[in-house]
Amino acid sequence: MAKKINKLKIKVSSKKYGNVGESPGMIHIADDAMKPVLRLFSYNQDEVQQSNGDDFAPILHQLDHCKKHMHWLQVNGLGDKRLIETIGEHFGVNKLVLEDIVNTRQRPKFDDYDTYFFATSRLITYQDNEISNCQVSFFVKDNLIISFQEDYSDTFAMIIKRLMSGKGLIRTAGPAYLCYAMMDTIFDMYFSMLNNLGDKLDDIEDRLYDNPDRSIMYDSQKIKRTMILLRRAIWPERDKVNEMLREDITLISSEVKVFLRDAYDHCIQIIDMIESYQEITSSIIDVYLSLISNRMNEIMKVLTLISVIFMPITFIVGVFGMNFARQDPITNKVLPDNMPELYSPHGYTYCLIAMCVITVAQVLFFWKKGWFSKL
Amino acid sequence: MAKKINKLKIKVSSKKYGNVGESPGMIHIADDAMKPVLRLFSYNQDEVQQSNGDDFAPILHQLDHCKKHMHWLQVNGLGDKRLIETIGEHFGVNKLVLEDIVNTRQRPKFDDYDTYFFATSRLITYQDNEISNCQVSFFVKDNLIISFQEDYSDTFAMIIKRLMSGKGLIRTAGPAYLCYAMMDTIFDMYFSMLNNLGDKLDDIEDRLYDNPDRSIMYDSQKIKRTMILLRRAIWPERDKVNEMLREDITLISSEVKVFLRDAYDHCIQIIDMIESYQEITSSIIDVYLSLISNRMNEIMKVLTLISVIFMPITFIVGVFGMNFARQDPITNKVLPDNMPELYSPHGYTYCLIAMCVITVAQVLFFWKKGWFSKL
Amino acid sequence: MAKKINKLKIKVSSKKYGNVGESPGMIHIADDAMKPVLRLFSYNQDEVQQSNGDDFAPILHQLDHCKKHMHWLQVNGLGDKRLIETIGEHFGVNKLVLEDIVNTRQRPKFDDYDTYFFATSRLITYQDNEISNCQVSFFVKDNLIISFQEDYSDTFAMIIKRLMSGKGLIRTAGPAYLCYAMMDTIFDMYFSMLNNLGDKLDDIEDRLYDNPDRSIMYDSQKIKRTMILLRRAIWPERDKVNEMLREDITLISSEVKVFLRDAYDHCIQIIDMIESYQEITSSIIDVYLSLISNRMNEIMKVLTLISVIFMPITFIVGVFGMNFARQDPITNKVLPDNMPELYSPHGYTYCLIAMCVITVAQVLFFWKKGWFSKL
Amino acid sequence: MAKKINKLKIKVSSKKYGNVGESPGMIHIADDAMKPVLRLFSYNQDEVQQSNGDDFAPILHQLDHCKKHMHWLQVNGLGDKRLIETIGEHFGVNKLVLEDIVNTRQRPKFDDYDTYFFATSRLITYQDNEISNCQVSFFVKDNLIISFQEDYSDTFAMIIKRLMSGKGLIRTAGPAYLCYAMMDTIFDMYFSMLNNLGDKLDDIEDRLYDNPDRSIMYDSQKIKRTMILLRRAIWPERDKVNEMLREDITLISSEVKVFLRDAYDHCIQIIDMIESYQEITSSIIDVYLSLISNRMNEIMKVLTLISVIFMPITFIVGVFGMNFARQDPITNKVLPDNMPELYSPHGYTYCLIAMCVITVAQVLFFWKKGWFSKL
Amino acid sequence: MAKKINKLKIKVSSKKYGNVGESPGMIHIADDAMKPVLRLFSYNQDEVQQSNGDDFAPILHQLDHCKKHMHWLQVNGLGDKRLIETIGEHFGVNKLVLEDIVNTRQRPKFDDYDTYFFATSRLITYQDNEISNCQVSFFVKDNLIISFQEDYSDTFAMIIKRLMSGKGLIRTAGPAYLCYAMMDTIFDMYFSMLNNLGDKLDDIEDRLYDNPDRSIMYDSQKIKRTMILLRRAIWPERDKVNEMLREDITLISSEVKVFLRDAYDHCIQIIDMIESYQEITSSIIDVYLSLISNRMNEIMKVLTLISVIFMPITFIVGVFGMNFARQDPITNKVLPDNMPELYSPHGYTYCLIAMCVITVAQVLFFWKKGWFSKL
Repeated sequence: MAKKINKLKIKVSSKKYGNVGESPGMIHIADDAMKPVLRLFSYNQDEVQQSNGDDFAPILHQLDHCKKHMHWLQVNGLGDKRLIETIGEHFGVNKLVLEDIVNTRQRPKFDDYDTYFFATSRLITYQDNEISNCQVSFFVKDNLIISFQEDYSDTFAMIIKRLMSGKGLIRTAGPAYLCYAMMDTIFDMYFSMLNNLGDKLDDIEDRLYDNPDRSIMYDSQKIKRTMILLRRAIWPERDKVNEMLREDITLISSEVKVFLRDAYDHCIQIIDMIESYQEITSSIIDVYLSLISNRMNEIMKVLTLISVIFMPITFIVGVFGMNFARQDPITNKVLPDNMPELYSPHGYTYCLIAMCVITVAQVLFFWKKGWFSKL
Repeated sequence: MAKKINKLKIKVSSKKYGNVGESPGMIHIADDAMKPVLRLFSYNQDEVQQSNGDDFAPILHQLDHCKKHMHWLQVNGLGDKRLIETIGEHFGVNKLVLEDIVNTRQRPKFDDYDTYFFATSRLITYQDNEISNCQVSFFVKDNLIISFQEDYSDTFAMIIKRLMSGKGLIRTAGPAYLCYAMMDTIFDMYFSMLNNLGDKLDDIEDRLYDNPDRSIMYDSQKIKRTMILLRRAIWPERDKVNEMLREDITLISSEVKVFLRDAYDHCIQIIDMIESYQEITSSIIDVYLSLISNRMNEIMKVLTLISVIFMPITFIVGVFGMNFARQDPITNKVLPDNMPELYSPHGYTYCLIAMCVITVAQVLFFWKKGWFSKL
Repeated sequence: MAKKINKLKIKVSSKKYGNVGESPGMIHIADDAMKPVLRLFSYNQDEVQQSNGDDFAPILHQLDHCKKHMHWLQVNGLGDKRLIETIGEHFGVNKLVLEDIVNTRQRPKFDDYDTYFFATSRLITYQDNEISNCQVSFFVKDNLIISFQEDYSDTFAMIIKRLMSGKGLIRTAGPAYLCYAMMDTIFDMYFSMLNNLGDKLDDIEDRLYDNPDRSIMYDSQKIKRTMILLRRAIWPERDKVNEMLREDITLISSEVKVFLRDAYDHCIQIIDMIESYQEITSSIIDVYLSLISNRMNEIMKVLTLISVIFMPITFIVGVFGMNFARQDPITNKVLPDNMPELYSPHGYTYCLIAMCVITVAQVLFFWKKGWFSKL
Repeated sequence: MAKKINKLKIKVSSKKYGNVGESPGMIHIADDAMKPVLRLFSYNQDEVQQSNGDDFAPILHQLDHCKKHMHWLQVNGLGDKRLIETIGEHFGVNKLVLEDIVNTRQRPKFDDYDTYFFATSRLITYQDNEISNCQVSFFVKDNLIISFQEDYSDTFAMIIKRLMSGKGLIRTAGPAYLCYAMMDTIFDMYFSMLNNLGDKLDDIEDRLYDNPDRSIMYDSQKIKRTMILLRRAIWPERDKVNEMLREDITLISSEVKVFLRDAYDHCIQIIDMIESYQEITSSIIDVYLSLISNRMNEIMKVLTLISVIFMPITFIVGVFGMNFARQDPITNKVLPDNMPELYSPHGYTYCLIAMCVITVAQVLFFWKKGWFSKL
Repeated sequence: MAKKINKLKIKVSSKKYGNVGESPGMIHIADDAMKPVLRLFSYNQDEVQQSNGDDFAPILHQLDHCKKHMHWLQVNGLGDKRLIETIGEHFGVNKLVLEDIVNTRQRPKFDDYDTYFFATSRLITYQDNEISNCQVSFFVKDNLIISFQEDYSDTFAMIIKRLMSGKGLIRTAGPAYLCYAMMDTIFDMYFSMLNNLGDKLDDIEDRLYDNPDRSIMYDSQKIKRTMILLRRAIWPERDKVNEMLREDITLISSEVKVFLRDAYDHCIQIIDMIESYQEITSSIIDVYLSLISNRMNEIMKVLTLISVIFMPITFIVGVFGMNFARQDPITNKVLPDNMPELYSPHGYTYCLIAMCVITVAQVLFFWKKGWFSKL
């Protein structure tokens, strides 16, 4: 096992939050959580005002100032317990929701609390052989949407661009549409990741038929593991979108629901692709394992052929290497029965011929039995 | 691995459309999309008027001219963004529908928009060891059906012939019937493809029992992969037809629903066949793998038998090939205990007899243990 | 692979009917379809009149003549397009039903058309290692039942006997009861076939433990394949009976429904048996495969033991077969260091003893390591 | 395969009743059915009267005599067609029910016929490595319950004891409670059987880790087979109890339903245990199979090490056993290039040293490659 | 199999309670059940009174004394039949409930009896490689909750602390909230256990790629077995919480239901994690098994290479070790055809060269065939 194998980089265990038996709704900030950075976009059909910073006060000021605008508050980084609690208090958010926001191992879900709703998604990205699995949460109330993200990655850059340029419904269709737009962006990222994985599968399959080695097993298992992760993330996403579609939620207009139906279709399509990929991966592994078996068969055949051919003739030369004496060196008694072949004029020639005949016969025999064909 | 294996020709990865985070309803034409060719059939019970071309203007003219006729507009090739948009505007089609038409990786689905409905199917064909997986979409509104197809293939030639000859309900039962007829044609193509695959399975099975080699594994996996593709395409098709049957859609008369029920039965039958084929393929692979194991067992038995028979007698001839001296050449001291067998008058004969006895005994022993029978 | 294996006789591919894109309801007679033979039983509580032949005219005459009787028209053989169409026209049968009657690859199904109902079953029989999979269809309207069968086999002989003898409800309970009776007969045939297969499984299991060879794999796979076929036939049968039970069909009286419930129980029992048999077959295959592995282990142990025991002692005799000279024949220089063992008075004896010791030690070593026990 | 394996004693095939195509409701007594023995318990809160025998007349007399009592008629043995029919006629039992009573391969089921209900259970017991799978049926009408059992086994002894001692609800809660009590007794027997099997699994697992041999495979498969049987028996039992709970049956009071709910919980628990045991059995088989593979690996390593070590040195001693002559015996020409090593004063010593070096080097090489560690 | 394997410590068989056929509601105390220790917490918003002991009388006194308080009676140890019965009588508990409390192999369930409700949970902990699987039951009536636990473990210490400190809703939200809090604590323990197992999986995976040995199989199976246990415990827990949420139970206020919904989400998350872990475990086992196969292939290749290289040249040296004589020692007849090579001046040199050439040729041949690369 000389060649070092690239280890799977998908850690099984996850960070732990909270302690056994604690009160529900306790906010535990992970040690490595990032400092929050805030960005507020206040917009209406005609204009967009932006306000950045890591302090909540100016944000609050702008919110109060532009009561007629719609607002999108982007919170990147969840490492400030006080900030989360301030937001919670200011907008009357249930403590359980706040707990779900900072405890970043939620399944995608949708919770409707009459006056506001809360949704989480998983944002899975694949970079440099490393899988990152972050949480994005959305809180929607009246004309406000707050998005919470674990890190500073610029996932929703395109949305901000669309918002700035005022193209499409994004400026007029309310915060629920913005929520849809961000969810759909996340789905788009699944698609792009799956296309990526599809290319890898194609590549593994090429190698499987051209030049199979054990990396096929490792790479296939890697993809299998990624698929487990993706499927676990996307299945509840489907339920979530379905709930948003079916239930009668005042914050989600029927106009937005048409788009949610489209997002639902995308979701189903992603699930479909994942299941196909899983089946294809299994098929690749099966072929690889049968290749190993075949390879073993071939090796064994070579070994057996060589042994079968050389053992008998090696035995024969052994026989004629025995030292049975023709004459006792002490008594000088002649022993004519002892290996007379050795003293026949053409003994050696006949012996060589016999060995050739045996060898040829064996080769022919195995040829006929089909050992030289491949199974 | 001298013999080159026919590679699977089923690419995993699919073309990508659109960018992450873009507005929904954006129409992205694939680079290799074909230039659209239009064909309009305007028909009533008595006559059929046909109008070809790649321009929308004359089509529009005929549509306006024959308001009392029913119309079937066939669009082959989706490579013209402007045309798609023009059609969309003219018939009031939702932008999401237009996106689905050009983004040709949709699952089969059925969307009802009160005044019109939209349906997509997958058209899977198998030619020259190459699988093609195209999309066909149907837009039905009032007395018009528009079919969108990715390429110029003449899939619906039979339907046109029936339309021309005026046989059956095709001229009188409205555009929903035409939609059914095209879907049923697609199902017929599944049947013909499955019969094709069934023949291949029979052939693989013949080879499995007569002359098994590793191509069985590859060919079985190929069929397995094709089955994954087909199942993924036909399952949503079933849901689609079911939706068309169950929901109360004004454009689909109860007369057409009787036919849709028939199509639904066909769909179920296709699913049944696919699942049977999958189970049969698995069974073939299992038999093949047990064949490899058996083959290995046989090879090992040959090797072991040969080794077991020749090792002891080769040892014996080795013993009598030792050079223990009867007389020290220097001191001429006689050493009578050193290998006296070599100087017995019949030592050689006895030795040969002993080796024969050992060999025969071993053969009998293994015979009794059943090694010469097959496991 | 000397012994010829009995090939599975279950063809995967099925006959094809109709062409891609054709009108629904087209009647395609298969080339090898048999010429229809008609038999009409007109009966009431008191008498049964029978009329045979291959012409529809006398049948029609009897139907008109005995309007108060109940009628059972038995059509064996479907090779006459004109006859099927005549029947269709005369009784007002939907063209799709006629297509289903002659296209003998239907799944079991039940279609209710207000004034009549239509049902199909699959009749699977197992004779001389050959599986036949025919279709039986039932058309029930008013006081008439028509049964369509692909061949002339006397499947319903017992029913005719019961009808003739006037025993039971068969004469009084109407054509739906007759339909039930025939379906139940088909279920009875499943039971008898499954008992047959159960005996085979018992036999395979006996062989597995007493005298395993590779026929076990083939026979198990054969049963597995038969089970796939049976399950595909009986599952929709269950849905069919359930539909007949649940839906409100005027032609099926509540009296008949009591019997249908019994048939439904039988159906469930058949499904149960099939699933049990499938699991048992899998278990047999697993044991067989582990037997192969064990057998391989045993073979390898024998080979290894023999090699391990003989290689060292063969090496030793090789050593004493070397020709290092005690005296240079040319210079006559004495070389006392060269193999002095050969010239020691008891060298040979010591050598033999040493080899015995080595052998015994090895045997003891492997005994202790448990190689002589079985894994 | 010297050691004889304990054959599985679970026969696959079952006895057959009835003929293909026969009238429903025909009573077929199996050839080996036992002669019925009757026992009637007539009881109220204060007293229990018992009446035994194999004749129906005295039973009938007692039934008529104690109209105010509740009655439990126990029928052990079903080998008397006339008796079954007499009972059927006297209590107005549907013929299909009678058929189900004597045809002892029913799935557990519950049939409600307004004035009476009918239920069957499977009584699976495990004794002396032999599984018996009997049927127990219950017929409940007014104040009477009749239990039908295939054999004379004293399954319900405890119930009789409770009835006699007048403890609990058993005397007052009516025949439906008695029916529940017997069903619950059957569930208790499942529990005791499962505990038994659990002990066996523990034992197999002990052997797997301490002293694995092939009996593990056979014993695991035996348990697997038993589990298939049990699961097939208990799943419909669950549906049965559920039906008794959910449906509105006058004979089952809400007081009894509380107990039925308890029985339902037991049923679920049994299903749970069975499924756990199945998974554990699979896990044991997987470990066993990997043990075989590991064992093979170890054997192969021993073989390879021995071969690799002895082959080169055996070759070397072979080289020095060659007879290339230093002097032609005929011409006496000296041939100084032929094997001068043999005539060097320390040739033999050097040769032995060289072989030692080679051996040690190889051992070190394989040590470093990790062959002496275990995979 | 020298290295001793750590045996799985998960016993399959469970303790048995009750006898076959006994009255329902019989209380059977297990032989090893612990003596009960009672602790009563009587609390309202302002104060908490605690009363310990193993006698029921003082408890009862306090219950009567503080009628306005809420009470939590903690019963640790179930080894006193009389106590359980006294509690049962005093609070009017159904006998079946009492049976469920002491029979500690219940599945998690929820039973609502109008005036009170009863719930059980499984408390699974993992310590020192030993899994313990205890039962915790909750009885809630009016302002009282009684928790029954099998042992004295301090599972709910945190809850008592919260109750004492008066933090959160715990003092005001009634006994149903306390019940929720304890259930949630149990869920927290699942999370902590799963994180533990996740670390183990990460560790196994590390070993799999760095230094695979057979402990991987055993450890994976151990985790698999633990997962079976956990899944069996958590699935019904989910149903239980769902029932508490959906059904209209007066003792559970809508305030508590908000928290139960949160607990339900945790439950789903646990199920999700378990299923992911199971899939990951399977993937690890698959990789391990393919490693064994690869290892075998490598071993076989070494063996075959060595055999193939040394067998032919060993044969050659055997040939030249034959004793065909150049001159009959008796008659002194010269035999020039017998092995003239031995007497050629450079015979030995040519022989050595030939053997070198053969060896090099073979190595090159296998190099080209790719045997030195890894599969």
